[in-house]
Amino acid sequence: MTPTLIEQESEIVGIARRARQAARWLASLPYEVRCEALAIAMALMEERKQEILEANETDCAIAEAKLAKGEISSAFFQRLQTSEAGIGHMIRQVRDVAALPDPLDKLISLTELDDNLILEKITCPIGLLGIIFESRPDIIPQVVALAIKSGNALLLKGGTEARQTNEVLVSIWHESMARLNGFPCDAINLLHTREDVQEMLHLDRYIDLIIPRGSRDLVRDVARHSTIPVLGHGEGICHIYVDQAADLQKAWNIVFDSKTQYPAACNSVETLLVHEAVAPDFLPEMCESLRCAGVEVRGCARSIALLADITPATEVDWETEYSGLVISVKIVRNCADALDHIERYGSRHTECIVTEDQDAANEFLQRVDAAGVFQNASTRFADGYRYGFGAELGISTGKLHARGPVGLEGLITYKYRLIGNGQIVATYTSGTRKFKHRSLSVVR
Amino acid sequence: MTPTLIEQESEIVGIARRARQAARWLASLPYEVRCEALAIAMALMEERKQEILEANETDCAIAEAKLAKGEISSAFFQRLQTSEAGIGHMIRQVRDVAALPDPLDKLISLTELDDNLILEKITCPIGLLGIIFESRPDIIPQVVALAIKSGNALLLKGGTEARQTNEVLVSIWHESMARLNGFPCDAINLLHTREDVQEMLHLDRYIDLIIPRGSRDLVRDVARHSTIPVLGHGEGICHIYVDQAADLQKAWNIVFDSKTQYPAACNSVETLLVHEAVAPDFLPEMCESLRCAGVEVRGCARSIALLADITPATEVDWETEYSGLVISVKIVRNCADALDHIERYGSRHTECIVTEDQDAANEFLQRVDAAGVFQNASTRFADGYRYGFGAELGISTGKLHARGPVGLEGLITYKYRLIGNGQIVATYTSGTRKFKHRSLSVVR
Repeated sequence: MTPTLIEQESEIVGIARRARQAARWLASLPYEVRCEALAIAMALMEERKQEILEANETDCAIAEAKLAKGEISSAFFQRLQTSEAGIGHMIRQVRDVAALPDPLDKLISLTELDDNLILEKITCPIGLLGIIFESRPDIIPQVVALAIKSGNALLLKGGTEARQTNEVLVSIWHESMARLNGFPCDAINLLHTREDVQEMLHLDRYIDLIIPRGSRDLVRDVARHSTIPVLGHGEGICHIYVDQAADLQKAWNIVFDSKTQYPAACNSVETLLVHEAVAPDFLPEMCESLRCAGVEVRGCARSIALLADITPATEVDWETEYSGLVISVKIVRNCADALDHIERYGSRHTECIVTEDQDAANEFLQRVDAAGVFQNASTRFADGYRYGFGAELGISTGKLHARGPVGLEGLITYKYRLIGNGQIVATYTSGTRKFKHRSLSVVR
Repeated sequence: MTPTLIEQESEIVGIARRARQAARWLASLPYEVRCEALAIAMALMEERKQEILEANETDCAIAEAKLAKGEISSAFFQRLQTSEAGIGHMIRQVRDVAALPDPLDKLISLTELDDNLILEKITCPIGLLGIIFESRPDIIPQVVALAIKSGNALLLKGGTEARQTNEVLVSIWHESMARLNGFPCDAINLLHTREDVQEMLHLDRYIDLIIPRGSRDLVRDVARHSTIPVLGHGEGICHIYVDQAADLQKAWNIVFDSKTQYPAACNSVETLLVHEAVAPDFLPEMCESLRCAGVEVRGCARSIALLADITPATEVDWETEYSGLVISVKIVRNCADALDHIERYGSRHTECIVTEDQDAANEFLQRVDAAGVFQNASTRFADGYRYGFGAELGISTGKLHARGPVGLEGLITYKYRLIGNGQIVATYTSGTRKFKHRSLSVVR
């Protein structure tokens, strides 16, 4: 509730309240105006490229000292650093979003409840979103583009290390919005401190959704403290089950790609489950190849009997997202065993079966409870760009609202519009009239 | 995570774990079998009617003593009590659910990512749901029917006062399931104590969604303590704005129906906003009619000048869901003032404009952020049955997943199935092949 005495309002509450008002305006701007903001921002990023690079150099200089002291990792430093090519990539990301169709005011269903009493279910923006991310400044152009395209306002909180870069990037969006008459500039806001985040996570009166983008620890910490719904994913413990009817060459390709193509990704594989009938033919060569690629293999008792020099896998291994060059291997008696293991240890992210047996595949695809269930394809395909969404806001392992890779539609909800000419409920409860409930059309 | 030492598992965790396994089976049962469970349960409710009535008499006898001591209200007692007609109503509710189409395995989209690499987005059950309700035993048949129809398992916690009735009703469903070969009876469970609920609200490893059905206090309490997503609504502070271009006869009908047709409902109106140009013509007669119907009118300073004998409305009135025969009245200068008031005090449930001016209506319908925005119709239409959903699980004022009246689709999520023939991501990142991303069809 807005405080009656406006003086009591904290700075963040003021920002959130104004952003919420801006969201209402943004939602009603014509599609062309929202697109124009993206077009101007792309041009400005090109124009103000030098300024972005200089700000990033300043950030990097400070971060370098932290790197030397071991306060940040070199991976962290690399994510912070941008370049001319990096800015080109940011511009392309905005262009990808610009190319997406308008997600607003789409009719989902239309029902004639009675004569001249029409119920429309129609898409609309969620409202005000809180985005929390770590060092990567390139998140800003993509997320702001997605938000403006979908009519949502933003509170952005980036990593302190990227502060200068983030400020220039946000100022570019403010300049773009300021050039458009009547564009609500309060829609996009950058917060600065950890305390800001703590306060933000409790503004459930103003903020509709929190999206943390970054490490597992960040997501877990945000989910634990937020009174606002959170869209994100905790863990990516993905499995590949190589069935007795697998084409072993396909299995080799898929496992190798899923583990080594980008091991830090949440959609890379952590545990390999192999049917006992094919384990002797498959595992020795597979594991040798993985080890040549620098992957440490940890195995169950049965796989140890088959493979030389591997570490025994413990209970902890089955529950671990390695996010690196380690894989655990388990030999199973059948598909049901594989399903039980996945049900027990999987994080509902992405699970794959390799098989030529369509019955086994169907059972797996039907029974596994995960955002993505794959047959004969690398787990690394679980990604918004590869799915063809044009942009990815993140991956959700929750089951409500948006599941799996989330594109623009993750920022959209719906409302019901009922258009009558004076109808009242008493007419229907008394039996004077009956509802028709005639579906007029479904566009989507 | 399942505990390694199974002995450490509490009773509720055991129930939840088995229910989750049952959910996986339930989800893969053919549509006909799920429907058959509903058909058998309907017949059994008819057969075992006397048993239900006797259990209910036992519950009511105990509750009557509590009523005499003032420990429960007479409204509470009435909701607890059932009758032959009440059982007939329960059976009809199950029949309504049985008549709904199968919500599972519906293709939402189909995309050809590349040759022989097909991405399906397909509906599936959410999994295991926790339903918490108060005295009304008639919630059980409806909710169990919805759950079985949609392939979800349930943990039910009803009010202690309805314990005997609830047990008979649940045993009817168990009997129905037991008659069907291979039906996972662990899917439907009744919990008994408050401690069970407290433990249930933290079983986020097993339970996917909590749905509290009952008073505002129940919903608020559950939302505060649950680590599992909650579907429900906190408050229903609904407004009607009578515009300067309103047909005043329609306005009179709509306001009268919205306030008096069933004042305890969350979709009844709490605050009436009237354009200053029509207030002198409209308000005196409107308020006189409301007062004749037993409604207390509280008004802003300007309306007091117009109306005799009304109580001044305070800040607290604008924030209050009366859930009874009280209405607050405010005269506003224009539509923008009405929108500001709604933005500030509305609970995003249902908001209505009465006007013949389509521009004003469009601005209102576009700008109001609520699950339902109505033009020229009673707020009481905001209801799953009236919307034509066949059954209503509840009303959500949240914006994620399901919004407004929630029918069967509130119990449904989706997953992505990717069917390939050995494709790996490296082929695409290296540029050897390019994605096609061709939309093959959209069924829904």
